[in-house]
Amino acid sequence: LKTVNLSSDALSKDGFAHYMLKEIHEQPTAVANTIAGRLYNDQVCKYFIDEPIADILKKVKNIHIIACGTSYHAGLVARYWLEAITQIPTQVEIASEYRYRKPVVPDDTLFLTISQSGETADSLAALRFAKTAGYLSTFAVCNVANSSLDRETDVCFLTHAGPEIGVASTKALTTQLTVLALLTLKLAEIKGVDPAVRTNLAKQLRTLPGIINQSLMLNDQIEVIARQIVRRDHALFLGRGVHYPIALEGALKLKEISYIHAEGYPAGELKHGPLALVDENMPVIAVCPNDELLEKLESNIEEVRARGGELYAFVDHKSKHGLANRVNHLIELEASGSFTSPIVFNVPLQLLSYHVAVLRGTDVDQPRNLAKSVTVE
Amino acid sequence: LKTVNLSSDALSKDGFAHYMLKEIHEQPTAVANTIAGRLYNDQVCKYFIDEPIADILKKVKNIHIIACGTSYHAGLVARYWLEAITQIPTQVEIASEYRYRKPVVPDDTLFLTISQSGETADSLAALRFAKTAGYLSTFAVCNVANSSLDRETDVCFLTHAGPEIGVASTKALTTQLTVLALLTLKLAEIKGVDPAVRTNLAKQLRTLPGIINQSLMLNDQIEVIARQIVRRDHALFLGRGVHYPIALEGALKLKEISYIHAEGYPAGELKHGPLALVDENMPVIAVCPNDELLEKLESNIEEVRARGGELYAFVDHKSKHGLANRVNHLIELEASGSFTSPIVFNVPLQLLSYHVAVLRGTDVDQPRNLAKSVTVE
Repeated sequence: LKTVNLSSDALSKDGFAHYMLKEIHEQPTAVANTIAGRLYNDQVCKYFIDEPIADILKKVKNIHIIACGTSYHAGLVARYWLEAITQIPTQVEIASEYRYRKPVVPDDTLFLTISQSGETADSLAALRFAKTAGYLSTFAVCNVANSSLDRETDVCFLTHAGPEIGVASTKALTTQLTVLALLTLKLAEIKGVDPAVRTNLAKQLRTLPGIINQSLMLNDQIEVIARQIVRRDHALFLGRGVHYPIALEGALKLKEISYIHAEGYPAGELKHGPLALVDENMPVIAVCPNDELLEKLESNIEEVRARGGELYAFVDHKSKHGLANRVNHLIELEASGSFTSPIVFNVPLQLLSYHVAVLRGTDVDQPRNLAKSVTVE
Repeated sequence: LKTVNLSSDALSKDGFAHYMLKEIHEQPTAVANTIAGRLYNDQVCKYFIDEPIADILKKVKNIHIIACGTSYHAGLVARYWLEAITQIPTQVEIASEYRYRKPVVPDDTLFLTISQSGETADSLAALRFAKTAGYLSTFAVCNVANSSLDRETDVCFLTHAGPEIGVASTKALTTQLTVLALLTLKLAEIKGVDPAVRTNLAKQLRTLPGIINQSLMLNDQIEVIARQIVRRDHALFLGRGVHYPIALEGALKLKEISYIHAEGYPAGELKHGPLALVDENMPVIAVCPNDELLEKLESNIEEVRARGGELYAFVDHKSKHGLANRVNHLIELEASGSFTSPIVFNVPLQLLSYHVAVLRGTDVDQPRNLAKSVTVE
């Protein structure tokens, strides 16, 4: 018999070194909890989106998504889904910008805000403005029941991420995206999108917890590349299409906890300026799933390679073939469908930031200068 | 009598050390040329926007602006103008992103692309897609008559910047913004915006060459702060509202020619991540005109100051009072109206990048890895 003396703090980390690492590993469960009871027989349950909510959605002609930080990136991903799958014009804007300009609100526009805490000052102020601005309705995606956002919005979809302690958001984003995917699926149903397409989307959502679980197995490989990136002071993250916001998020995460100046770019913009930064001291991290943009991304990567940039590519079993000889390091993820792919590809980027920060010796769970919820302007 | 032997190269630089510096100084003339014959008695001339074009504009219910690099920043500024002044919902998107997703085109949407050369591959491809996508019409803003863009778009508004040789765009952007301001003014007329408001906007445009000329007098002050920034490897550029794209552009310019990793941010997003980067080694450059966002920007600046960040603020005679004791360096611009303010505030940022690059000894007119026109994807 062995007695172990654990503080309540250590206990709540479930043996993980940091809350962030624990929360990264909680994602399969958090996603499963967020889907539970909301998806049945490839349809979004009425328990989740009931008739009155569906009646509002039937009228939606435009969507304005307003959020800050990581939640803003969730909105950017959702925009690609909504426009491509449901054909509803969608705009995404940073809350602190939106609330101080004079946004035009066309008829039948849905306002949608996203916040983990439900207390983000700029997002709440945007919601309060929106309630006076002639929107069809105000919807929110939030992790905290009975938060200000939950109380004040017309409709709130809760994520079931559980408490998130680490300042750098991980499972909150993943579950936000899960809810936004469910909403997209419901709108696809309302818009009469081909049932075969919807069945495929629903299937991707159901298999998501399992695929995220498998991507967590990449931890040791990612630690190896973290040992190289930790020596640098900069990084560029590249993505295209629905994976461009994932590149933005990967860069934000690295900034937040390792204090490395990382910046995300849509790969096609490289030649319009940032390529000047690329030399042998600039690691370039590319999010490269096998999609219709792969060929274009390959040519962007070729440009980086020609300038001596250190290349790290996150690939799947199909995209790896075109990239294997072009990059310094290849991390292969389990293939997921194109719908859930941005959710899956975000996970190894979280692990990368985590390991770089640990190697740098920063306070991973409470990075300098940042607060968990930005409740002041 | 003194004979001076000048190469044709030096001659064409008119005595300036670099094309970029020459082109920065050509801006008052370039703007005057771009306005000439297009504005009369506070109205946009029919020579510039004739009846058939005005008939199209009368039908416009949405605008999609598509561009790359610096031209994309011109589009972002125009969006603020168009939504605030004419109430026409406007979206701005990077061409390489736009052309590969499935954008939704609502009825009566105007497609507008912006390119200095008129040969930018992604912008041209976007235009060719747009011609098949059910737009009301395709408009362009371009500096080169008879370029592919000029030939293929339904309507092309030419900027009269003259040839731009420096790879980093300066006068091209300024004249693009001038044309977009004229277009906004015409749409304001069509939408029946209060004539007093329109008279004020027109007046701001007429005084623009003179105000830009005065801002060029800041050259020596800017060279002094360049000597401090040149020692750094990073920089953050902050702005809010219509000056947020100017912060993005200031950062892009510094990246392009000095290879310093500069990044632009809307100031309100600082607390959502990038503030973690701020310490005594991070210069923060703030675009701070006297507008409704000044008070909010002041509080963002306070956050930077509290973390030891080195602060440089570009102000006008009103905004300087609230900032004088909060920043390390204050550069005061001649006051301009809120409409033309982003055009004016961009000029000293061009000079800043120029001087930093000269001090770093880079090839200012032909920065590494970059081409003047990106005619391949």
